[in-house]
Amino acid sequence: MNPTYTVDLNCDLGESFGAYKMGNDEVILPLVTSANIACGFHAGDPSVMKKTVRLALQQGVALGAHPGFQDLVGFGRRDMAVSPEEAFDLTVYQIGALSGFIKAEGGVLHHVKPHGALYNMAAVNPALAEAIAEAVYKVNPEVVLYGLAASALVHAGEKLGLKTAHEVFADRTYQQDGTLTSRRLPNALITNQDEAVQQVVRMVKEGKVRSQQGIDVAIKADTVCIHGDGAHAVEFAQLIRQVLTQKNITLQALSL
Amino acid sequence: MNPTYTVDLNCDLGESFGAYKMGNDEVILPLVTSANIACGFHAGDPSVMKKTVRLALQQGVALGAHPGFQDLVGFGRRDMAVSPEEAFDLTVYQIGALSGFIKAEGGVLHHVKPHGALYNMAAVNPALAEAIAEAVYKVNPEVVLYGLAASALVHAGEKLGLKTAHEVFADRTYQQDGTLTSRRLPNALITNQDEAVQQVVRMVKEGKVRSQQGIDVAIKADTVCIHGDGAHAVEFAQLIRQVLTQKNITLQALSL
Amino acid sequence: MNPTYTVDLNCDLGESFGAYKMGNDEVILPLVTSANIACGFHAGDPSVMKKTVRLALQQGVALGAHPGFQDLVGFGRRDMAVSPEEAFDLTVYQIGALSGFIKAEGGVLHHVKPHGALYNMAAVNPALAEAIAEAVYKVNPEVVLYGLAASALVHAGEKLGLKTAHEVFADRTYQQDGTLTSRRLPNALITNQDEAVQQVVRMVKEGKVRSQQGIDVAIKADTVCIHGDGAHAVEFAQLIRQVLTQKNITLQALSL
Amino acid sequence: MNPTYTVDLNCDLGESFGAYKMGNDEVILPLVTSANIACGFHAGDPSVMKKTVRLALQQGVALGAHPGFQDLVGFGRRDMAVSPEEAFDLTVYQIGALSGFIKAEGGVLHHVKPHGALYNMAAVNPALAEAIAEAVYKVNPEVVLYGLAASALVHAGEKLGLKTAHEVFADRTYQQDGTLTSRRLPNALITNQDEAVQQVVRMVKEGKVRSQQGIDVAIKADTVCIHGDGAHAVEFAQLIRQVLTQKNITLQALSL
Repeated sequence: MNPTYTVDLNCDLGESFGAYKMGNDEVILPLVTSANIACGFHAGDPSVMKKTVRLALQQGVALGAHPGFQDLVGFGRRDMAVSPEEAFDLTVYQIGALSGFIKAEGGVLHHVKPHGALYNMAAVNPALAEAIAEAVYKVNPEVVLYGLAASALVHAGEKLGLKTAHEVFADRTYQQDGTLTSRRLPNALITNQDEAVQQVVRMVKEGKVRSQQGIDVAIKADTVCIHGDGAHAVEFAQLIRQVLTQKNITLQALSL
Repeated sequence: MNPTYTVDLNCDLGESFGAYKMGNDEVILPLVTSANIACGFHAGDPSVMKKTVRLALQQGVALGAHPGFQDLVGFGRRDMAVSPEEAFDLTVYQIGALSGFIKAEGGVLHHVKPHGALYNMAAVNPALAEAIAEAVYKVNPEVVLYGLAASALVHAGEKLGLKTAHEVFADRTYQQDGTLTSRRLPNALITNQDEAVQQVVRMVKEGKVRSQQGIDVAIKADTVCIHGDGAHAVEFAQLIRQVLTQKNITLQALSL
Repeated sequence: MNPTYTVDLNCDLGESFGAYKMGNDEVILPLVTSANIACGFHAGDPSVMKKTVRLALQQGVALGAHPGFQDLVGFGRRDMAVSPEEAFDLTVYQIGALSGFIKAEGGVLHHVKPHGALYNMAAVNPALAEAIAEAVYKVNPEVVLYGLAASALVHAGEKLGLKTAHEVFADRTYQQDGTLTSRRLPNALITNQDEAVQQVVRMVKEGKVRSQQGIDVAIKADTVCIHGDGAHAVEFAQLIRQVLTQKNITLQALSL
Repeated sequence: MNPTYTVDLNCDLGESFGAYKMGNDEVILPLVTSANIACGFHAGDPSVMKKTVRLALQQGVALGAHPGFQDLVGFGRRDMAVSPEEAFDLTVYQIGALSGFIKAEGGVLHHVKPHGALYNMAAVNPALAEAIAEAVYKVNPEVVLYGLAASALVHAGEKLGLKTAHEVFADRTYQQDGTLTSRRLPNALITNQDEAVQQVVRMVKEGKVRSQQGIDVAIKADTVCIHGDGAHAVEFAQLIRQVLTQKNITLQALSL
């Protein structure tokens, strides 16, 4: 009998705000298995959060909180020198806020994935990573912590006994130390869709990725980041679903 | 045997924000039995919320969410023409956010009391009152909804089967229809502390208040609003505790 | 010799915010003669303001400040119970902020038009209207105050000696007292584009509008509100430009 | 005849926000010669700005804009990874907003001093410094740019032809390269008030400061930062005024 492989497809959702629309949630939601829902700090507002939770529940997509910096005009993408305690506090607040809507709609919080600059900083800053992991643990020790594969964030979660999801990117290249190639360097992006999908297939089935140095690197691929916005987002989501399924990889969120 | 009387003393707390300090939480907390904790919209921030929850837990004071309008510069005191759905959404969000800290600190959410303009509008606007009551009910049907005695808000809560706390004011006078005398009118305030305390004693023991028209009006007094700020706040809180206790009125939050 | 007629076509612009795009400024700007630029409270941010000022200058469109309530999530469309002094202060602040960019780009502030709920409230509330007019006057007594035709706002401006622009709507019907038909009533909107344009032509040339009661009402039409968003916005702007020009009505902003 | 010495005493003011009070503006204003007025991003609100401008004008204190990061909860003290263009935009916006109140009150903008993290980052980051200097220059090339003595910020201003004010600190020690001793190191602060004042006297009269390494370092002292808050703020302001005056140092803002 063949071994079974599973992987989760996650996407940032609920990023509209007031009169401002962002993304194409209705179209992308049926194509993914878990949703990272903005919590009102870098994007999203209470009304958008309610609608997004409802929509994700209808589609059977796992519900995740997507906390970010309180920097709406910067969309949470600008590094901010927060202390670990401030990171703890803003994470608890945002998980709590989303959990309010999840309770009101009769769902279950499945995971937490930090957004943007908070995600990137937590990937390399152990003190920040530990603060975020502790925030998740203290609010709900059953949920899954999503972070960059092999990053300080997933390690901090594992140390606390949290379930973690190592996240990989289809359209990004990797270095021989397992980190992503910086966007400032050439060849950071994989623009060929087939190549991008094949990279994911190999990460899931073999646990390896070919680095920019031409050397295979071990990588854990629990979840793949799917973009919800952009010209080819839907097309790529459809392609990756199709190919992964053909390769006998089951698409599903990590079980709690 | 004498009948037993109980009443709750509630106070708005956790109203500091960032570098801005407000109130005297450490001093007032031991004098009240329930705390209405600001949730970051009209006052409070994630760090203040955590500290306030922790402090209230240490003092054995019942923990309440105190949602308000997203109007920090106006301290949530300015009426805003929100729709009932928007009121529902902002209430769910803020209850959820505070609940995150309560979980992280190992406590239990006890009640919800809207703040400022939201409280006043919900007292007289049934559609808004129903939206807020429904928000509380959907997030946690076990908690107590605090509202102005005999207002649209407590009625909306009772209709849904929520426990409610009818709130009375020691330092405000009443009209013969049971409403508060408008602050725009003379005699709206009771400045004599002994008179203010005696009004509460009578409300609790006899269920009556002498209106400005000289006629007794029936009133339910489950909880008394204690001010945390101002020159005589602490002094008055100490006085009312002492007198109520002498009159064999037990001070405690409503049981869940 | 024929009399000459002129009218201004104004449009709300610069309503994007951070990563959120709104409107189609590049397309609509060449079609109007004055721009109401959001100032960061209900919409717009510093970067958007700079770009919008620059774009409007390039197109030779008159630059106006478009102050609104500090209610980004509500897009400034929700009534807020601000005091006249608060209205004065928020108007000064926002005119000043936009003037910073106008100076930096080498332009001249031409007008001020309040936004959304602030516009509507100032149309009927004389105290609010006077506060806004005074704010404009104190920051720059040379600029034009735009307000609903015959409203409290333009009257307040005229009383102070400000130039004012009475604003009319192509796509709204009027009552016999000169006010707009409430959107809650049927027949509030004129959906036929030709009818809408003809209403404007008559308002400009004859100073009259046929009310819903079938009676002609006197109206001053200095400026016409052109929508920048929506399916037919551009098409309608092109149509009204074409017809007004054919009717020998000159399209230009009021001279300072 | 003796040479004449002058120095400016500047203080951050107008840092209250809505219901939140900060500082003791009425008391400190008569003791300083220039006021850095918060502009609503890290502190201050439109009403506070108006009152502060009015108060400073009454006291004959020079009016300065004090732009900061849009981080109210962090009081603008947390580094944010803004681009130079974003720094330009937020500076223009805030100078403009304050200028609105200055015009409304009949005053003149005298200077600009960035706040907190923006000040610190601009002291060492030339690209950021140039963007801020350019923003000041484009809005009003006549005003004085305040920055840390010998920092990238004052150099950027000088390169553009702006008047600059090199700022020194009475209560901070210096390194032999002219920079401030980091607050993370011991001996960063001078707690003895007499020593602090003597350091300023020497900086003004001799253009020198004794560094922590025991070596005299050249320093330009155009303006001294006076703290408005804290237990001994007023007492120290009074002391430094008295001693500087005794030493025949004239206290006045830089002439425009």
